[in-house]
Amino acid sequence: MHDGKFRIDARDGSARAGVLVCAHGEVETPAFVPLATSATVKGLDSAEVEALGFQMVLGNTFHLFLQPGHELIAELGGLHEFMAWRRPIITDSGGFQVFSMGHGSVAEEIKGSRTNERQSRILEISEEGVRFRSYVDGAEKFMGPETSMEIQAALGADLALAFDECTPFHVDRDYTARSTERTHRWLDRCVEWHSRHAPAGRLLYGIVQGGVYEDLRIASAERVAAAPVAGVAVGGSLGQEKEQMREVVEWALRPAPPEKPRHLLGIGDVDDILASVAAGIDTFDCATPTRLARHGSALVPDPEARWRLDLAKSRWRDSREPIAEGCPCPACRGGEYTRAYLHYLVRAGELTAKRLLTLHNLTFMALLMDGVRESIRGGSLEAYSRRVLAGEGPWSPTSGGP
Amino acid sequence: MHDGKFRIDARDGSARAGVLVCAHGEVETPAFVPLATSATVKGLDSAEVEALGFQMVLGNTFHLFLQPGHELIAELGGLHEFMAWRRPIITDSGGFQVFSMGHGSVAEEIKGSRTNERQSRILEISEEGVRFRSYVDGAEKFMGPETSMEIQAALGADLALAFDECTPFHVDRDYTARSTERTHRWLDRCVEWHSRHAPAGRLLYGIVQGGVYEDLRIASAERVAAAPVAGVAVGGSLGQEKEQMREVVEWALRPAPPEKPRHLLGIGDVDDILASVAAGIDTFDCATPTRLARHGSALVPDPEARWRLDLAKSRWRDSREPIAEGCPCPACRGGEYTRAYLHYLVRAGELTAKRLLTLHNLTFMALLMDGVRESIRGGSLEAYSRRVLAGEGPWSPTSGGP
Repeated sequence: MHDGKFRIDARDGSARAGVLVCAHGEVETPAFVPLATSATVKGLDSAEVEALGFQMVLGNTFHLFLQPGHELIAELGGLHEFMAWRRPIITDSGGFQVFSMGHGSVAEEIKGSRTNERQSRILEISEEGVRFRSYVDGAEKFMGPETSMEIQAALGADLALAFDECTPFHVDRDYTARSTERTHRWLDRCVEWHSRHAPAGRLLYGIVQGGVYEDLRIASAERVAAAPVAGVAVGGSLGQEKEQMREVVEWALRPAPPEKPRHLLGIGDVDDILASVAAGIDTFDCATPTRLARHGSALVPDPEARWRLDLAKSRWRDSREPIAEGCPCPACRGGEYTRAYLHYLVRAGELTAKRLLTLHNLTFMALLMDGVRESIRGGSLEAYSRRVLAGEGPWSPTSGGP
Repeated sequence: MHDGKFRIDARDGSARAGVLVCAHGEVETPAFVPLATSATVKGLDSAEVEALGFQMVLGNTFHLFLQPGHELIAELGGLHEFMAWRRPIITDSGGFQVFSMGHGSVAEEIKGSRTNERQSRILEISEEGVRFRSYVDGAEKFMGPETSMEIQAALGADLALAFDECTPFHVDRDYTARSTERTHRWLDRCVEWHSRHAPAGRLLYGIVQGGVYEDLRIASAERVAAAPVAGVAVGGSLGQEKEQMREVVEWALRPAPPEKPRHLLGIGDVDDILASVAAGIDTFDCATPTRLARHGSALVPDPEARWRLDLAKSRWRDSREPIAEGCPCPACRGGEYTRAYLHYLVRAGELTAKRLLTLHNLTFMALLMDGVRESIRGGSLEAYSRRVLAGEGPWSPTSGGP
């Protein structure tokens, strides 16, 4: 299981550049993994995602379980065949979504109603797992560690994540401690299931939980480090501020076996990626780049704006500028589309805006990671990060991007 | 104005194959013109539309007038620059949309409420034109023949259509007669405006109205034939049944000068295109192929199903078939995506479904027109039509498609 399918080729401080060898091919790391939540990177076909340079996508266990169902996908040849993506796929454990129905967010708790509506979908949480109602058809469903592993295996994931509860920021230490303990017991059951049933060459990662509590995080990281898993994923609440997030990642990695790959769940901001790579993270997945695109925002080399450009703003109404000078994506290339045009498309709710911005934002992420890998190999990650944090675009020739 | 910018290279019965020379390049005819209503073929970027083989798109005068406004588009270099489409563009006259706010459809009249809501947007219809409220911001707007021409010129259309009232099916003969007369007076005003203000090389087509009444249609066609316009467009109600539509097209073309190009507005069904090409139509525009795609239907060589395949139907839930064997589009090529996958994407409301089906349906239309042009040149339009009407795909090698 933890069969050395990760090869580290270069180190730069705690950062590593390497290759993760999966059943469906290799993934150069550090890598950003786009979300293919519902068996598609929203708005793109699989050939386009590959052409952008990505080598792995993340499918969503919970959503695919409910629609169209993992049995159907298995019958049709697995998720790779289903979505015509022949490279590696990670699937998340489903834990985040299944528990989200109960947790809600802090904002939702304040608003009240939405949390209640969500809570009503959870019927029971027990040591076995979670009983809930499907948002698709209201049918009663169950997901526990074995179900999660079964679904991920049926989908044909190259890389499965152990079933966990992703504790949110607003739960207290006591809840976090008890939840993390249960996640550890679930990890054992996932390891057991995986060792008996998973096809050869499929990888299982354990997930480090423990919220924002140093001792709980480190204890959880030690537990995952000791487990016979191929890699370590860091999940759960990483805090409300970037400083705290970096601290939590550092705790979670402290006991991690250096030879195993490490995945950071749900983090995708430019500065967070650079800091986490420096701390020793190898892969990332995050909804932000593609979600921002669908809501009209482009990633741009502007640290003060958190790398975001909101094209819906009326100041772009008559701007002849492209989204970003020098970006090789289909929206920017040759100054093809102006901010004025994209502003108009965003305001008019046109599909083409979602598509062009998705292509742009994923191009940004792909080139950022190209630069990260190249600079680690050249021993210049710190200098690269400094330039990006100072506002250099990842497509700049000096950044190491193509 | 009617300066011989249309070159007929081959004839097959009444059908013609040729080249329409526009300010922004040539269009091989017969051609299907995809809709770029809101300055985009929904979900595709302009480079993709060109790659599909289309040489002209149709922009919408009414919608672009209201959002983002023709002055802004002109300031930004015109519609070609704005949407990065450097080939010819037709713009419709805006008449259809502006009057639709009042007319509604028969179905809407039966339902009642929607027509009232729409009617409330029209403030006044007079000899001058129409005063109405914008659906974007509620502002009062006016469109008459000169406004329509001004907007189309500001957009930079290669081919403008004279302002008309598109009479719907359910209005009576008397209304149709009076409306058609007014459309003729508006045609004179459009010709006048065009001759004074339009940049050189821009084409103006007159529109034949007259509803389903033989004498009114023929009188209207004679009026347009006598006008100093570059081409003839056939608009308005073409009847409720295909037989009647063909009759109306035949009346409308009877007095048309044979050397001028003829456009049929809003028609795009496979059998209607074949019949209309045989009657002497050169270009078509229609929302159907792209609209069907966005609603989950693919065009397939199945005459009995009116060339439509509804992928939302549960019978495709586990189908391993592609949409259409032999189709070279990104959705079908190499059997890449199954009906099961597309069914799932359609049901889940995924953008990728709209995109893949739009690419498929426009590929179908492009290849259909390739076959039409090739068969006219080979004197075999009737045989080609017979094969397509018998269920042969336009991608079949014997069809003349690539």
